[in-house]
Amino acid sequence: MKIKMINPNTTVSLTQTLQWLAQAWVRPTTELIAVSPPMGPASIESYYDDHLAAAGVFHEIARSEQEDPADGYVIACFGEPGLWGARELTSKPVLGIAEAAMHMASMLSPSFTILSALNRSKVMMEQLVYRYGMERKLRSVRPTSISVLDIHNDPENSIRRAVELCRKAVEEDGAESVILGCASLSLHREAIEREAGIPVIDGLLAAVKFCEAFAELGARTSKVLTFAKPQPKAYAGILRDFGNPL
Amino acid sequence: MKIKMINPNTTVSLTQTLQWLAQAWVRPTTELIAVSPPMGPASIESYYDDHLAAAGVFHEIARSEQEDPADGYVIACFGEPGLWGARELTSKPVLGIAEAAMHMASMLSPSFTILSALNRSKVMMEQLVYRYGMERKLRSVRPTSISVLDIHNDPENSIRRAVELCRKAVEEDGAESVILGCASLSLHREAIEREAGIPVIDGLLAAVKFCEAFAELGARTSKVLTFAKPQPKAYAGILRDFGNPL
Amino acid sequence: MKIKMINPNTTVSLTQTLQWLAQAWVRPTTELIAVSPPMGPASIESYYDDHLAAAGVFHEIARSEQEDPADGYVIACFGEPGLWGARELTSKPVLGIAEAAMHMASMLSPSFTILSALNRSKVMMEQLVYRYGMERKLRSVRPTSISVLDIHNDPENSIRRAVELCRKAVEEDGAESVILGCASLSLHREAIEREAGIPVIDGLLAAVKFCEAFAELGARTSKVLTFAKPQPKAYAGILRDFGNPL
Amino acid sequence: MKIKMINPNTTVSLTQTLQWLAQAWVRPTTELIAVSPPMGPASIESYYDDHLAAAGVFHEIARSEQEDPADGYVIACFGEPGLWGARELTSKPVLGIAEAAMHMASMLSPSFTILSALNRSKVMMEQLVYRYGMERKLRSVRPTSISVLDIHNDPENSIRRAVELCRKAVEEDGAESVILGCASLSLHREAIEREAGIPVIDGLLAAVKFCEAFAELGARTSKVLTFAKPQPKAYAGILRDFGNPL
Amino acid sequence: MKIKMINPNTTVSLTQTLQWLAQAWVRPTTELIAVSPPMGPASIESYYDDHLAAAGVFHEIARSEQEDPADGYVIACFGEPGLWGARELTSKPVLGIAEAAMHMASMLSPSFTILSALNRSKVMMEQLVYRYGMERKLRSVRPTSISVLDIHNDPENSIRRAVELCRKAVEEDGAESVILGCASLSLHREAIEREAGIPVIDGLLAAVKFCEAFAELGARTSKVLTFAKPQPKAYAGILRDFGNPL
Amino acid sequence: MKIKMINPNTTVSLTQTLQWLAQAWVRPTTELIAVSPPMGPASIESYYDDHLAAAGVFHEIARSEQEDPADGYVIACFGEPGLWGARELTSKPVLGIAEAAMHMASMLSPSFTILSALNRSKVMMEQLVYRYGMERKLRSVRPTSISVLDIHNDPENSIRRAVELCRKAVEEDGAESVILGCASLSLHREAIEREAGIPVIDGLLAAVKFCEAFAELGARTSKVLTFAKPQPKAYAGILRDFGNPL
Repeated sequence: MKIKMINPNTTVSLTQTLQWLAQAWVRPTTELIAVSPPMGPASIESYYDDHLAAAGVFHEIARSEQEDPADGYVIACFGEPGLWGARELTSKPVLGIAEAAMHMASMLSPSFTILSALNRSKVMMEQLVYRYGMERKLRSVRPTSISVLDIHNDPENSIRRAVELCRKAVEEDGAESVILGCASLSLHREAIEREAGIPVIDGLLAAVKFCEAFAELGARTSKVLTFAKPQPKAYAGILRDFGNPL
Repeated sequence: MKIKMINPNTTVSLTQTLQWLAQAWVRPTTELIAVSPPMGPASIESYYDDHLAAAGVFHEIARSEQEDPADGYVIACFGEPGLWGARELTSKPVLGIAEAAMHMASMLSPSFTILSALNRSKVMMEQLVYRYGMERKLRSVRPTSISVLDIHNDPENSIRRAVELCRKAVEEDGAESVILGCASLSLHREAIEREAGIPVIDGLLAAVKFCEAFAELGARTSKVLTFAKPQPKAYAGILRDFGNPL
Repeated sequence: MKIKMINPNTTVSLTQTLQWLAQAWVRPTTELIAVSPPMGPASIESYYDDHLAAAGVFHEIARSEQEDPADGYVIACFGEPGLWGARELTSKPVLGIAEAAMHMASMLSPSFTILSALNRSKVMMEQLVYRYGMERKLRSVRPTSISVLDIHNDPENSIRRAVELCRKAVEEDGAESVILGCASLSLHREAIEREAGIPVIDGLLAAVKFCEAFAELGARTSKVLTFAKPQPKAYAGILRDFGNPL
Repeated sequence: MKIKMINPNTTVSLTQTLQWLAQAWVRPTTELIAVSPPMGPASIESYYDDHLAAAGVFHEIARSEQEDPADGYVIACFGEPGLWGARELTSKPVLGIAEAAMHMASMLSPSFTILSALNRSKVMMEQLVYRYGMERKLRSVRPTSISVLDIHNDPENSIRRAVELCRKAVEEDGAESVILGCASLSLHREAIEREAGIPVIDGLLAAVKFCEAFAELGARTSKVLTFAKPQPKAYAGILRDFGNPL
Repeated sequence: MKIKMINPNTTVSLTQTLQWLAQAWVRPTTELIAVSPPMGPASIESYYDDHLAAAGVFHEIARSEQEDPADGYVIACFGEPGLWGARELTSKPVLGIAEAAMHMASMLSPSFTILSALNRSKVMMEQLVYRYGMERKLRSVRPTSISVLDIHNDPENSIRRAVELCRKAVEEDGAESVILGCASLSLHREAIEREAGIPVIDGLLAAVKFCEAFAELGARTSKVLTFAKPQPKAYAGILRDFGNPL
Repeated sequence: MKIKMINPNTTVSLTQTLQWLAQAWVRPTTELIAVSPPMGPASIESYYDDHLAAAGVFHEIARSEQEDPADGYVIACFGEPGLWGARELTSKPVLGIAEAAMHMASMLSPSFTILSALNRSKVMMEQLVYRYGMERKLRSVRPTSISVLDIHNDPENSIRRAVELCRKAVEEDGAESVILGCASLSLHREAIEREAGIPVIDGLLAAVKFCEAFAELGARTSKVLTFAKPQPKAYAGILRDFGNPL
């Protein structure tokens, strides 16, 4: 089985880290491919970045479908740029990591808090929560102020701060699990989970495992209406190659 | 990996059928155990049956946890008798087949219809839909009037009628996938899916595959509050053995 | 008129207290019967206990219907074990005390807080709130840490603490009435109400009075679909006597 | 016990009919007073009429509170003109008949349809349904086209048509009880209920019986914030007497 | 173009202030008329006042429609007394200032807080929020304790306190704009907005500008059902002149 | 005042039509600029097209902000590609035509139906409806099967068919206004409105007029958090020019 994980930003080192993170959890028979698209932002920190990152996601899915189809696709960014458009491009499952995390959290606990890298993405996260019908399970969105640099320089302290956030999510917000809405803490997910004593869920792992499950079941995205294939048509300017993706 | 599938009613022939159905989709390394409890109703067709069936579910989970723990449990009935109580009894994942079906359907399509064996269980299904936050994805609950006997006597006609229901779900209700809320059609799920041209989702398969995924990730049910272990206490009468389940 | 109040746990002293509490408020012509079932848990503190307590509720309702029908039934536990199954067993009104409390509170005030005996039952209470459509009226669920023993040893201090909780519900949460989600404070409801200056609602009293009202109106539970009588069928093992309840 | 039923329109013959209807169901010890206010519309068929009818409701409650307080008040019109303002004028329970009907229906069935006299009041009824949190229980609002004259001239045919509406509510809309949102059918409620085989609920009876229950419990409207007494102040023109109601 | 702004209370000095406030923002070609009705309360501080104020609103709209129709009407009180009844009286747009403020805020920011003059009107504001579908955008209702007198005596201090409330709305509640739910702060809206650094929205200005826009587009209130003209009928007592408004 | 209307697709003839349509309704002092971006799809008929069209929207807003800022921006496509990202790029109001239409419809009627050009965009429209909190006002989404060609070849027949759709929306769905979710019918909006007898709302006109209103009020998009300016950063490949938009 082949699963393609698309990091929608163009920072290859992050792509490699995400692959390394997920590789540890896939089955021996699963081939996990991780890519960054050749176009788009180096990081995704706004709606602006998020919308523009969709192009790279589409590019990567279309390329695979033409050249070497995967059995499932994962959009490895919590904002899930281009997810619903991506579903139009293929009948294979395409999973976002926010949705995968929320579905998983809701099967393991009655409620959750999302730890978000950026304060400004709180509303974006709430919109995802509504989209997936999780508004009665969401207890809070809490921004971490833990940067990638913090984690690199002082991992123990970063873990301690993350555990403290989990504790607050439980005690002040009533959450019973925590979703990592930021890649930076994923490297230490297990340590945080062990210390915090509650499920700490990484959407990337959830999405990859759901892809494996769906692919084994032969499950396909519904093409009957909303996710039917887009019509070929003229595209202008720098996007001219997007006119006939399939 | 060991997954225990509990058919909450006591009809062993159904248990065997469910096992046969699921066995085809688990991985070679997964040991799938299917049981019926020694107490409870022969079939579940009302809230009365559903509530009473919880005892058997608890019995089976407690027994496994004491004697031979599984890595995950599936409650193989769409009403999910005792699901939240069952989660208190173990830290392993416990999945209902309604929730698994709905989470799966919502990752493959924007909306779904539930085919229900009984007309009277429509409200019960709506309550499950609310519990899982799927009210904006539900398009309709449609009772099938296809009995197990119908299926046995004339499978082709039964499939034709099921496909017709899928067609109506799409055209009249706007559904883009269909969830089988009744075991009777599960034997022919693939044929129906092929004919109907939309995802036809069986919660039993979804739940078993999610269990595999969660077990491989080492994912556990949150025990921090709502699903903490129940306190041992005196139980009276015919339920006296339930007082100290763990 | 005869109203049967079923305490779903098997602690007879609590049953007697509940009867004593309610007896003071029924009409002279109302015969109030209070029972504990012969099977089930001594107290209800988890979903596990709650689900198993349904059997006793069913037993008591079926027994009455066969031998000496009441004009209405009250399930005297805030978790309302077996409520919807119980409605299938009789056409007489069957009321839970959580629903009765919430309906009453919403006719006397625009919002309420629920005082809950146990912290862990917060999610269970939220689910009841959703079931009854009261999510826009609920201001908070606040666990009391006032035990039955506390009340016995120092009633004045217990009342003071309960009044303080009411004050916080009003000032911090914006509640305008309080629902007692725990039997322990019911004995002092009037004192708390007087001190706190807001309606303090006990679901047991609400349910009993609604039963009187419904019985006088000749009102019946709808049997047209969801609450139709369960079919007789084989029940196995310790539940074998539940197969033909009517 | 004294209950005052205010028909918010000025048609005294209707007031008498409503009193006659309710009188049959109150307890011997309940004194039921029915009034029409001295100002306002002869009938209520629009938001315009509804808003203006509030003045008469306030007039009647203020008059009673000053001269001869009742133990509870019922606003006997489905639009519930002035209900929340009326609650400010007294600490006694004040019940609307739409809310009473919906609370009662939801304790006897999982869902209901409202039969509405006027097609144009459908949105008004939906707003009441939202206010009381009943949107998940409402199956439909169906206008009757049965006039008071129809009922007078040919009661049997009117009943037959009403029963047919109930049947459609059940079969086409999935309702399991019916609320009479129009006084005209109330005279034949029992016959309709018997023929239709589902609960047919009249909010006037529900409200009066809830008033009895609340009064016996000593229950009061919360005065802590939203329903606190209005401040005396200058009122101009034809409303000048409303400035100091208490 | 002529826009009529109805201050539903009878305090003419406030009417003049509101006119002065709005006059600065209308177009040169817009004739802005501001009136207080000849009946009703001197101020609106309760549901009681609010319901009674509807009569004056109806009086003013009916009078204009008969004598000198405006192109649009604004009900210049946050409680919007009589709004839906007023829409029945004319096919011209009739706008409330709460709805105008919320629609405007939701086009400029993802969320808002309402500053309310009175603590007791919090529930009334929540009801307006539900009516307009803004419950997912509302972050909080915060009462100001800034009186008209405070503003007159020490405007700088009042502004400072208002800015502090805006800051709390942003930092503690997550609001990204603020709606003035009280006229008293409107005089200093621009100063507060400048200091606070977020949109501070006055519904009166929003409503007047929406009226201009709608009138220029020739937009009319739908008269097809809910807002159809009320039937002429007998009105009794002090309201006798309301029987035939059109 | 200068308002820039961005047609997110690259079909210049449509841009000209939209400009012609809107030009008739703006004020003499409003300069209305209409553009198509130099990149992107010739038409928008899928999520794929919609997501990719955001780039052109961003390009046009950034270009204006640098070179010749407008006082407000309108994204002239019902799918509102890139709307929230566009709001990050400027503090001027940026309005989508779906949101403008829904806000306008909800101030003129209690409910609406959306006429949609494509059947497949029904779910996309429902998502917009949820985003704007209009789910209780939406009565239906009805696809028209009226193509641009139909309208060109036989305008009278097209109008007749559109009026018939309006009639069905009123009679079968209970709508009281209609929103044109497709540009093709906009040319005949007034004729349809006149024939149908209900408000027929074009979001383009609504958005342009709201822009005028907001600009005259000096209203700005909140920049305090969600819509703060995006950080400059590296963008790769064909999107390399998007890295520093401001």
